[in-house]
Amino acid sequence: MKQIEIKVQVIQDIAEIGKIAKENNVIFHTDAVASAGNVPLDVQSLDIDLVTFAAHQFYGPKGAAALYIKAGTRIVPLVYGGIQEGGRRAGTENVPAIVGMGKAAEIAKRDLQKRIDHVKPLRDKIIDNTLKTIDKVILTGHPEKRLPGHASFVVEYIEGEAMLMLLAGKGIFSASGSACSSKALKSSPVLLSIGTPVHLAQGSVVFTLGEGTTEEDIDYFNEAFPQVINRLREISPYSKGWGKTEDPTCTTKK
Amino acid sequence: MKQIEIKVQVIQDIAEIGKIAKENNVIFHTDAVASAGNVPLDVQSLDIDLVTFAAHQFYGPKGAAALYIKAGTRIVPLVYGGIQEGGRRAGTENVPAIVGMGKAAEIAKRDLQKRIDHVKPLRDKIIDNTLKTIDKVILTGHPEKRLPGHASFVVEYIEGEAMLMLLAGKGIFSASGSACSSKALKSSPVLLSIGTPVHLAQGSVVFTLGEGTTEEDIDYFNEAFPQVINRLREISPYSKGWGKTEDPTCTTKK
Repeated sequence: MKQIEIKVQVIQDIAEIGKIAKENNVIFHTDAVASAGNVPLDVQSLDIDLVTFAAHQFYGPKGAAALYIKAGTRIVPLVYGGIQEGGRRAGTENVPAIVGMGKAAEIAKRDLQKRIDHVKPLRDKIIDNTLKTIDKVILTGHPEKRLPGHASFVVEYIEGEAMLMLLAGKGIFSASGSACSSKALKSSPVLLSIGTPVHLAQGSVVFTLGEGTTEEDIDYFNEAFPQVINRLREISPYSKGWGKTEDPTCTTKK
Repeated sequence: MKQIEIKVQVIQDIAEIGKIAKENNVIFHTDAVASAGNVPLDVQSLDIDLVTFAAHQFYGPKGAAALYIKAGTRIVPLVYGGIQEGGRRAGTENVPAIVGMGKAAEIAKRDLQKRIDHVKPLRDKIIDNTLKTIDKVILTGHPEKRLPGHASFVVEYIEGEAMLMLLAGKGIFSASGSACSSKALKSSPVLLSIGTPVHLAQGSVVFTLGEGTTEEDIDYFNEAFPQVINRLREISPYSKGWGKTEDPTCTTKK
């Protein structure tokens, strides 16, 4: 079977995108929810008009998020009625969570490099071991231009939801499909739109590490993940050779 | 000067409104944010399709609110993008705050009568003393059909914001104008639309009591509030007699 590479750049070149947007007079919003607190982010040196980030992604409390608005950028509120947030978003402000977000942002900036240095080698151990010990697994995204604590794969002929369930049974919590709509049981639209075949996109799985992740956790993971895949392949019809045809659904009665 | 009565029913007859809405096939939403936890609320015995309430109004955490949706009522999301809340509101759920809201609701139901019995006599002491000791002050809203911990007044020829500031200086925090847009320095549209003259509506002030309010707090308040009004009337041009004409702005050069 031909090895497929899914090697898109996971951390986008925001500076370049911002430059193009500015040259063409396009308002540029970037959703930095996953990157804020994980990689450096300097709104002043980039041509960004709007940036979104969420406190709970950098160890702040749930219930607070922020929209950076470059001076002079006009936005239309989605939620209106009250005069909070300068009329941009109605509703009583969650002051304790906002204070917590401020503190969390301060700490995230202070500890950024320390956090990167902690998770990156652990992440690499997961990637190395997974590619080495599991057959027909592909690392999705760029090997280097990705979040330091982020490892994502597609496992051929395995359904994402089945992996999540067996992994959860072992105390390992992961996501499949598109992170924000993982309950929707759909393949990641990103993977599909960059040309990943459906039978691969359905077997997507994402692991994220944090400052609480230890060497022991990684050793445990590296033992458990291949076990889960082996177990799923044992019960999969594809392991019995049906996957070798072009359309396995036509061959089940042979 | 003729005494004006502003005696609208502050707690609306939701049962009757619901009945009329149902008879006419109108979807009925009620904003119960101020009443949930303060007065009994039984969605099942009332013809309500949608009810909004917020945790922080009944001693739950900020950051959680709920929309009761009667089975079969269809709503269009304001915030879309993710599949959270059954597709009705996108965004990562604030699980700790939701759990807190559930617990707060449980306690609010258990302690409802106790809370009412605590704040009502204290509220009545405020109303009685204010009407007795301050000249040209009017209780707004119904004397009885109002929230048990809620006292609201208009004070003639006094600006609401000035009252708030002097009261805050004495450690008493209140609201003026419309509660949700008190920063907008506008008269309450409710008071205006029920016919309150502008010179009265501008002097609106709302006090709310809670389970932490003590007898001593009320004694302190009852001493402080008349002092604040006297001080403001001393520095007000209206106290010098200008207020007696129909249009005081035409008389300032006499």
